[in-house]
Amino acid sequence: MSDTTNGFALLNTKLREIQHLRDASAVLSWDQETYMPSGGGPARAEQIALLQTLAHDKFVSADIENLLTPYIDPTTGLANDKASGLDDASKALLRETWRDFSRAKKLPSDFVTKLGRECSLAQQVWAEARQENNFSKFAPNLQTIIDLKFEEVDYIGYIDSPYNTLLDTYEPGSTVAQLNPLFLRLREGLVSLLENIRNAPAHPDDRILYQSYDHDQQLEFGKLVLTKMGYDFTRGRLDVSAHPFTTSFHPTDVRVTTRVFEKDLPSCLSSCIHEGGHGLYEQGLPPEHHGTPLGEALSLGIHESQSRLWENCVGRSRTFWEYFFPLLKNRFPNQLKYTSVEGFYAAMNTVKPSLIRVEADEVTYNLHVMVRFEIEQDVIGQWVSVKDLPDLWRTKMKDYLGIVPERDADGVLQDVHWSFGAFGYFPTYTLGNLYAAMLFTQAKTDVPELESHIAQGNLLALKEWLNDRIHRHGRQYTSEELIKRVTGKTLSAEPFLQTLTEKMQEVYQFT
Amino acid sequence: MSDTTNGFALLNTKLREIQHLRDASAVLSWDQETYMPSGGGPARAEQIALLQTLAHDKFVSADIENLLTPYIDPTTGLANDKASGLDDASKALLRETWRDFSRAKKLPSDFVTKLGRECSLAQQVWAEARQENNFSKFAPNLQTIIDLKFEEVDYIGYIDSPYNTLLDTYEPGSTVAQLNPLFLRLREGLVSLLENIRNAPAHPDDRILYQSYDHDQQLEFGKLVLTKMGYDFTRGRLDVSAHPFTTSFHPTDVRVTTRVFEKDLPSCLSSCIHEGGHGLYEQGLPPEHHGTPLGEALSLGIHESQSRLWENCVGRSRTFWEYFFPLLKNRFPNQLKYTSVEGFYAAMNTVKPSLIRVEADEVTYNLHVMVRFEIEQDVIGQWVSVKDLPDLWRTKMKDYLGIVPERDADGVLQDVHWSFGAFGYFPTYTLGNLYAAMLFTQAKTDVPELESHIAQGNLLALKEWLNDRIHRHGRQYTSEELIKRVTGKTLSAEPFLQTLTEKMQEVYQFT
Repeated sequence: MSDTTNGFALLNTKLREIQHLRDASAVLSWDQETYMPSGGGPARAEQIALLQTLAHDKFVSADIENLLTPYIDPTTGLANDKASGLDDASKALLRETWRDFSRAKKLPSDFVTKLGRECSLAQQVWAEARQENNFSKFAPNLQTIIDLKFEEVDYIGYIDSPYNTLLDTYEPGSTVAQLNPLFLRLREGLVSLLENIRNAPAHPDDRILYQSYDHDQQLEFGKLVLTKMGYDFTRGRLDVSAHPFTTSFHPTDVRVTTRVFEKDLPSCLSSCIHEGGHGLYEQGLPPEHHGTPLGEALSLGIHESQSRLWENCVGRSRTFWEYFFPLLKNRFPNQLKYTSVEGFYAAMNTVKPSLIRVEADEVTYNLHVMVRFEIEQDVIGQWVSVKDLPDLWRTKMKDYLGIVPERDADGVLQDVHWSFGAFGYFPTYTLGNLYAAMLFTQAKTDVPELESHIAQGNLLALKEWLNDRIHRHGRQYTSEELIKRVTGKTLSAEPFLQTLTEKMQEVYQFT
Repeated sequence: MSDTTNGFALLNTKLREIQHLRDASAVLSWDQETYMPSGGGPARAEQIALLQTLAHDKFVSADIENLLTPYIDPTTGLANDKASGLDDASKALLRETWRDFSRAKKLPSDFVTKLGRECSLAQQVWAEARQENNFSKFAPNLQTIIDLKFEEVDYIGYIDSPYNTLLDTYEPGSTVAQLNPLFLRLREGLVSLLENIRNAPAHPDDRILYQSYDHDQQLEFGKLVLTKMGYDFTRGRLDVSAHPFTTSFHPTDVRVTTRVFEKDLPSCLSSCIHEGGHGLYEQGLPPEHHGTPLGEALSLGIHESQSRLWENCVGRSRTFWEYFFPLLKNRFPNQLKYTSVEGFYAAMNTVKPSLIRVEADEVTYNLHVMVRFEIEQDVIGQWVSVKDLPDLWRTKMKDYLGIVPERDADGVLQDVHWSFGAFGYFPTYTLGNLYAAMLFTQAKTDVPELESHIAQGNLLALKEWLNDRIHRHGRQYTSEELIKRVTGKTLSAEPFLQTLTEKMQEVYQFT
């Protein structure tokens, strides 16, 4: 081996070792959310904190720096001449590792520890405050978190807007300047669509979804759908947790969770399909690159595109239910005796402005995200103070969705994100929806038989298309490059608005 | 704080941090045995190996050495004058930490890695060899492990016999010179007891235990008994695994597992009670000392005494079943319709020489251990070669138990221990039995109401006695000191032989 490949191989080995610590920490977190006895919390927090600190320290160490910097042109952040013998994927690995390294390196270790501690504290206080419907209890912690986010931006620096640095954490390369017009167009389209729905002649009856459905039968059906999606249970599990999530310790061990409410059929079902989409991405990452950016999901937006594509483009489609509704009816013959596949499909696509984002339908969901996106910009722009957030929330809810929460628990306190400092995270949900529509439209073009496959319960063609087009590339391309590569287009709201409008025209019978 | 207490406090902090790594590794192992999908094995092995290497490296680091050595007289291994301001428990902490440190320090890091790798490999080969009933497949790996154990003894050194160094790993302070006469006396007693049983007028009928018993009902009953034992489910769990075990990540998170065979009632039941005994020990360790020897179980023998005390002295007693048999009968009315508490108690104490140690009854169990103890001494004394072990096994089984395995899978290949290098481990099972009898005898003296409590299903008095006498001390005393402190006696086989003989006289009706 040459010096170049030697050093590069060693860098890979070190990165993999650091990843083992992150993977171990993820196992501990999964356990905490699923099976850990209630008394185990404080010890678990210390174990996780230690693993994360070790991983951070090892990553920003001179070891990594000395292996990485010789390959990098610091002005561009790209691989330099020394890397000329390496292939494009390896150069991308260097570029992305450098991105992570230089960001992490800018944050002093004691700042990272402090942020971790304050977030952990704030999450507890947030949970209590939400429980008690008491925003002022959480306000001081939120202020602390916001101050720490300003400090973070100070360390990392920013271009144009401090908020861009936060966005960049979750969706590399995205900016306020790019998102604001995109979201504006989306808002126009959604508000007008919502208006059409309100005035539509037909309104589906979704009460059938909220009868009593047996807990275990719901889970079994979720497992069935996951299996048909190609989610590999020899490399994964489905468990129950308070909030559904997906976690991965390696492409050979990717776990999803769901929750089950006996009186809410869509909850477990949609969670299974949604998390299954995330899970397929993680199972589809190349194991030989595990621990490096080439073995890692590209961004939260792309990740969410996978879950939303399955949950909405597939799991709320007429085609999907053609195959799956009879199976569901077999399991719940009493509940669905008088329901047709058309009726069920319509029920699954009911639109109704509501207070809680995670329960929102496909049309109003992005309006919830916009409320948060705008408030975050106001907070980071220092145009609003923490104490005024509950009012601002109500105003924007009224403005976007036409409804106002009576309780802060159903308003500004509903999401966990701010309590762990995740400002800049929410927009990735909407990006996921927009990407999903673009990708699914393209998949139908690339695989002309796709819909007839789905109608026969064969979901593997879609899974394989996603494996090939998205999953196997890890972080080799930027989001922009990847979407361009796959669809030939740049990010836009049109495919999303168009396909959603078509579906709503079918369900609500307007033109 | 003085320099002394400062340095001592810092040592404690560092030890605790190392423990977090070990605890994290234990979580990963628990997950591997319970919920990990089958594909996750290789990645998991790497995660665990890294955590263990990190823990080892941190423990033998100059950091620990510099904090520890100033307090230690290296000729005695005890705390020196610098520690004179500290209390006895703290001095014991220093003594035991030094014991661990000086042992660990003697093993070169690459030896530890190599041993770990070879053991991991050997375990896989062993499992296949047992499956295929093919000892010669496993023999080369076993030879490698044995060679590595010799190397280990070379690094650590030994007094009188190399085997003493291996014994000392699991039961600090125990030696061949101490164990051989003890085991000889035990053998005499057991062989004569077995003879009496063979010739006894009454033989219990245990077929009722092997009817069909519902899986979930068995688990529920196991949980009930654990709860009555005072096993705290807010700080623990019961799960199912291929082989029952107990693991702890902190006294606030101690988990036990069992296995369930529908046609074998005692298996799940005894495992639950046995692991519950281990679990109570771990839950009873002082949390404020977690990570230091004061927060750690004393030895494998003492650990086993806790499981055996509950499993046999309690769980196979007439008194215990007085309360629990009616509850069991409620759950399994069809199976136990015609069975009295006397009949059930007798069935649970049936003695029958059999091939498999883990399925052995209370009388023959220790004979199984002796077979292994003697073979290990032969191996480490180099008086037998690996290829001759299957024959030696058969000879000794014939000699001790009067039966001979036809297949090596039921003979020399049955236990996992040698495949992971655990030579010197088996005797602790017998020590556990002997300690258990001594402790339970003492408990009945100290708490005169104990048996009437048990007969009423109140097991907490015993749990609290064990908490006070054994659990809370961690490794403050040596096994010898602890047993002397609690019972006023030194280790002997008599209490075990006496109580077992009394029970067998009752069950088999001889005098």
